Amino acid sequence: MALIVQKYGGTSVGSVERIRNVARRVAKWRAAGHQVVVVPSAMSGETNRLIALAKELQAQPDPRELDVVASTGEQVTVGLLAMALEAIGVRAKSYTGWQVKVLTDSAYTKSRIISIDDARLRADLDAGCVPVVAGFQGIDAEGNLTTLGRGGSDTSAVALAAALKADECQIFTDVDAVYTTDPRVVPEARPLATVSFEEMLELASLGSKVLQIRSVEFAGKYKVPTRVLSSLTDPDIPVEVEGRSGTLITFEEDPKMAMEKAVISGVAFNRDEAKITVHDVPDRPGIAYAILGPIADANIDVDVIVQNVGHDGMTDLSFTVHRNDYARAVKLLKDQVQPHIKCREVSGDDRIAKVSIVGLGMRSHAGIAARMFRTLSEEGINIQMISTSEIKISVVLEEKYMELAVRVLHKAFDLDQQ
Amino acid sequence: MALIVQKYGGTSVGSVERIRNVARRVAKWRAAGHQVVVVPSAMSGETNRLIALAKELQAQPDPRELDVVASTGEQVTVGLLAMALEAIGVRAKSYTGWQVKVLTDSAYTKSRIISIDDARLRADLDAGCVPVVAGFQGIDAEGNLTTLGRGGSDTSAVALAAALKADECQIFTDVDAVYTTDPRVVPEARPLATVSFEEMLELASLGSKVLQIRSVEFAGKYKVPTRVLSSLTDPDIPVEVEGRSGTLITFEEDPKMAMEKAVISGVAFNRDEAKITVHDVPDRPGIAYAILGPIADANIDVDVIVQNVGHDGMTDLSFTVHRNDYARAVKLLKDQVQPHIKCREVSGDDRIAKVSIVGLGMRSHAGIAARMFRTLSEEGINIQMISTSEIKISVVLEEKYMELAVRVLHKAFDLDQQ
Repeated sequence: MALIVQKYGGTSVGSVERIRNVARRVAKWRAAGHQVVVVPSAMSGETNRLIALAKELQAQPDPRELDVVASTGEQVTVGLLAMALEAIGVRAKSYTGWQVKVLTDSAYTKSRIISIDDARLRADLDAGCVPVVAGFQGIDAEGNLTTLGRGGSDTSAVALAAALKADECQIFTDVDAVYTTDPRVVPEARPLATVSFEEMLELASLGSKVLQIRSVEFAGKYKVPTRVLSSLTDPDIPVEVEGRSGTLITFEEDPKMAMEKAVISGVAFNRDEAKITVHDVPDRPGIAYAILGPIADANIDVDVIVQNVGHDGMTDLSFTVHRNDYARAVKLLKDQVQPHIKCREVSGDDRIAKVSIVGLGMRSHAGIAARMFRTLSEEGINIQMISTSEIKISVVLEEKYMELAVRVLHKAFDLDQQ
Repeated sequence: MALIVQKYGGTSVGSVERIRNVARRVAKWRAAGHQVVVVPSAMSGETNRLIALAKELQAQPDPRELDVVASTGEQVTVGLLAMALEAIGVRAKSYTGWQVKVLTDSAYTKSRIISIDDARLRADLDAGCVPVVAGFQGIDAEGNLTTLGRGGSDTSAVALAAALKADECQIFTDVDAVYTTDPRVVPEARPLATVSFEEMLELASLGSKVLQIRSVEFAGKYKVPTRVLSSLTDPDIPVEVEGRSGTLITFEEDPKMAMEKAVISGVAFNRDEAKITVHDVPDRPGIAYAILGPIADANIDVDVIVQNVGHDGMTDLSFTVHRNDYARAVKLLKDQVQPHIKCREVSGDDRIAKVSIVGLGMRSHAGIAARMFRTLSEEGINIQMISTSEIKISVVLEEKYMELAVRVLHKAFDLDQQ
């Protein structure tokens, strides 16, 4: 008997019929002798509907009130799902976030979980009942409703699994696994049976948006075995099969295990970015802050940042922003930053893409970067920016080469081989 | 400066535009120097939509889960209304039922309020903020969500006014007052400037469904001055005018004041009923229970019950039920009750109506009943059943005479005279 936390996304509970399917899936795991806690999202479209109502009343909705409104979506789903379970003879009981005391900070619309009180859930599980807990929401120390931000139900599920020391957290979603890269770009892309949590972090942040990145951080921090699997399969597929399907996020501590794995786990890419370069800025302390401080103050998120060694007391600083923020960022730099720091020029390009290779194995293998750069050069693809981490190498290149780059890298690192 | 609790029904908050109107009305009362607590219902149609979803999943939805789902309607409205207030510069803060600790019993879908913690609301009011509190909902001692049943937001508002010792509870609705009778039946019907809470109780239960009956009981118990007034007027009508509009429910202790009032306050009627008579039952203790016990067990509500003195050891028992329950009640009596109690016959009629006159004044005036019966007899209307209380006389008559009876009684008791 295992204790399993199952999370179902908005599409999986998007209609009465789909809620019934979720109930059948949960019933199947119960019948196989497992304890199950279910964490559903709001029915698909519901959160957007509520936010649209709010924006009609207030252009910038009050964050506290927005959370009061938005958190009702999940509350509806937990009640309905508990009914669907009861209707097929599975004892179930719904809980809102505050009822199980998912305590968060007070950062409305993007709160972080501090603690979860598992007493009521344990009592239910011991009594053979399935707790159905609203994802996405919590309560702060003053008793205000909070939400965890888009995709927050993943984090709720992992946090509950951590609090309950569950054997596994199963994230049911509309993809059936984490892939070596996007199958729409590379038909040979393979589903990964396992992926390390560090790799998953890099993959999640780079565009393979299967899991909310904070949920992966949470899984890593508390070592919650987390599996991504499909909710679109036949609900009656045997638990022995379903329990091995999808991708399991692992926490390998043993370097030998890491070495036995493939060097590279996946190729990620992102075409939503634009690059900006500030040329010939004085190479002195504080210059990066002088440039990026105003960008952050304008609520523009920066992704890659590259600064090379300077020469003649001058250097160039490049970074990427979301393509939607490109024009605003360039204007801000030219109007407010350039006059102060006396750089030569602010230039940029919004027709770029970022391609990354990710792999725990690259920590212990030399020559990975060289192989990546050679592969791209053999195809005549120019690399505009390079940035690296322990387990990731990202390059920025002209957008039109993105698919080609992903395909040749996928092949060069043998990701199409089992 | 007065402290006012304002309740707005589902129609009054049925769209973004109407929510804005409510905000303007609240802002006007604030600008006039009053403290205001607002209690909105769910947007019209929302509660029905949620209940329909629930019934798709469970024919008889689990009552606890139904409350979890249904209570989201009001939660959405409080958030939206708080935003609408903030958008026009009125400081506001929303609260769910559990956040102000509207403590109820655990009778899901029809809970009763036990207590309300007014600490947070007082702090907000003192700080010049408008608390917007979700109606209809509460929390039980175990932390489960509860609802107060249809129309429960009226009760929430009155209970909050009682807890805060508010100067007045204003129930904004889509009628502009309590009338002497239904103006659609009697064009001469007059709005009542005041009505005693006892009269309101009788009027509410008899079909002039302006206020949920439990809210009137609550108002009476805690002597909350409660005003019924229209939300369909221009929101910018001056507070001096609006504050005297509609009907004020009063608590007259002084019998002299009661005597100065009109003898009869209103004529109520109900055509949703059917009458059933059990003929020639043995006139012995327990017989009423033997007949009505099984009816209650079948969840059939009984309204009027009449039993006259028996003769030759036999008597007749008559009662009325909702017309929808008529066939089921007759079948149940014939199948399950008649064989045991050995009555002669079970008969009934579902083409009847009940007409009542209500007035605190009748306690101190003789001959009211006689005048009522004479008025009806002059029109050739036969009275089938009579039942009376301290301040109400009800008669059951053939349905086709209902409008005529209401009109002649309205005239006979001078209700068309100011």
